[in-house]
Amino acid sequence: MNQTIEKIIQFRDERDWKQFHNPKDLAISLMLEAAELLENFQWKTSDEAIAKNMTNIEDELADVMIYAVLLADNLGIPIEQMILNKIEKNEAKYPVDRFKGSSRKYNEAE
Amino acid sequence: MNQTIEKIIQFRDERDWKQFHNPKDLAISLMLEAAELLENFQWKTSDEAIAKNMTNIEDELADVMIYAVLLADNLGIPIEQMILNKIEKNEAKYPVDRFKGSSRKYNEAE
Amino acid sequence: MNQTIEKIIQFRDERDWKQFHNPKDLAISLMLEAAELLENFQWKTSDEAIAKNMTNIEDELADVMIYAVLLADNLGIPIEQMILNKIEKNEAKYPVDRFKGSSRKYNEAE
Amino acid sequence: MNQTIEKIIQFRDERDWKQFHNPKDLAISLMLEAAELLENFQWKTSDEAIAKNMTNIEDELADVMIYAVLLADNLGIPIEQMILNKIEKNEAKYPVDRFKGSSRKYNEAE
Repeated sequence: MNQTIEKIIQFRDERDWKQFHNPKDLAISLMLEAAELLENFQWKTSDEAIAKNMTNIEDELADVMIYAVLLADNLGIPIEQMILNKIEKNEAKYPVDRFKGSSRKYNEAE
Repeated sequence: MNQTIEKIIQFRDERDWKQFHNPKDLAISLMLEAAELLENFQWKTSDEAIAKNMTNIEDELADVMIYAVLLADNLGIPIEQMILNKIEKNEAKYPVDRFKGSSRKYNEAE
Repeated sequence: MNQTIEKIIQFRDERDWKQFHNPKDLAISLMLEAAELLENFQWKTSDEAIAKNMTNIEDELADVMIYAVLLADNLGIPIEQMILNKIEKNEAKYPVDRFKGSSRKYNEAE
Repeated sequence: MNQTIEKIIQFRDERDWKQFHNPKDLAISLMLEAAELLENFQWKTSDEAIAKNMTNIEDELADVMIYAVLLADNLGIPIEQMILNKIEKNEAKYPVDRFKGSSRKYNEAE
């Protein structure tokens, strides 16, 4: 996976695109890719979307991850540490004994 | 990084949440996290957002990646291969010699 | 309805907020409100969302319309004419005889 | 404006599309149109976006409003009353004397 992340950075640098990559527009781009991903599910059940749009779903999900990596790189955030920190916070918000098998949000009544 | 991905899956499975994770709602959730990330930049320049909201930016970017991993897992997509495939497509869309140092889209005139 | 639109502009002007309202951040804000609206449907069927979140759905849908009006005003676009123009384009894209009772997109095969 | 709203409903009914219009997919569609609107501002300042993409901005903003009207109709919400209710709530959240000339959010310190 770390090699894949390096590939993403290399793709950007070969095109000299870092100069355009301000964090605000990267955050917009990430959002737009997430919307293109979601578009595959519009007016469809999950099963219909998978049957009809699987290749596009993979492509757009990849684009989401690519932009997420580019934004992390741009901000100088170490990705693994960032995710581990957030998992820790999520564990505090959603303790196993209170949320096992429940889909409610942490601030919704039991 | 592969261990981090396993941690994400483990977090889900300890709470028995896979039963709620249909791809359509995961794609919605990914979009919502991308919006929460972007909210940190609303009415702000990139520099102002970083100065004021850096911790929250890290948290929301982590949530984007976590949902991206969960959706890939749910759909049975191998993440690295998916990203490498997309980089290949992007290389065909944006050849270095035509797009180096240019911010235009592949379908915009030179 | 025209009085309601004036009320929206008046709300902004009483707070002297036009100075902050650049079109890019208004477009971001509109997107964020649409995400907050959609959040009411996350992990839920339409019926569950309506049963549980109707007041919030109304509030967020109102915010979407409010930002849409503010963006149109900011760009000097006459709202009615803008909508009528787009309906005309949509009529050309989706002629009744070919799309009556069909949910496919204009660029999808019949 | 009320005639314009009727035109939107008429466009839908001529194509017999109400049968597909469940609130969840309408909320998704509204979000997707807001993303397409925002795409016009990606990697651009507001001025650059306006100079280059004004027609598309108008079209996408119209689509946002059209879907907002369709969702309100689908849910049986009277649009004007909905907006007036929300303005009232916003007035309570943002009293003129505390927020005139300030861009901070209601929950941000003065």
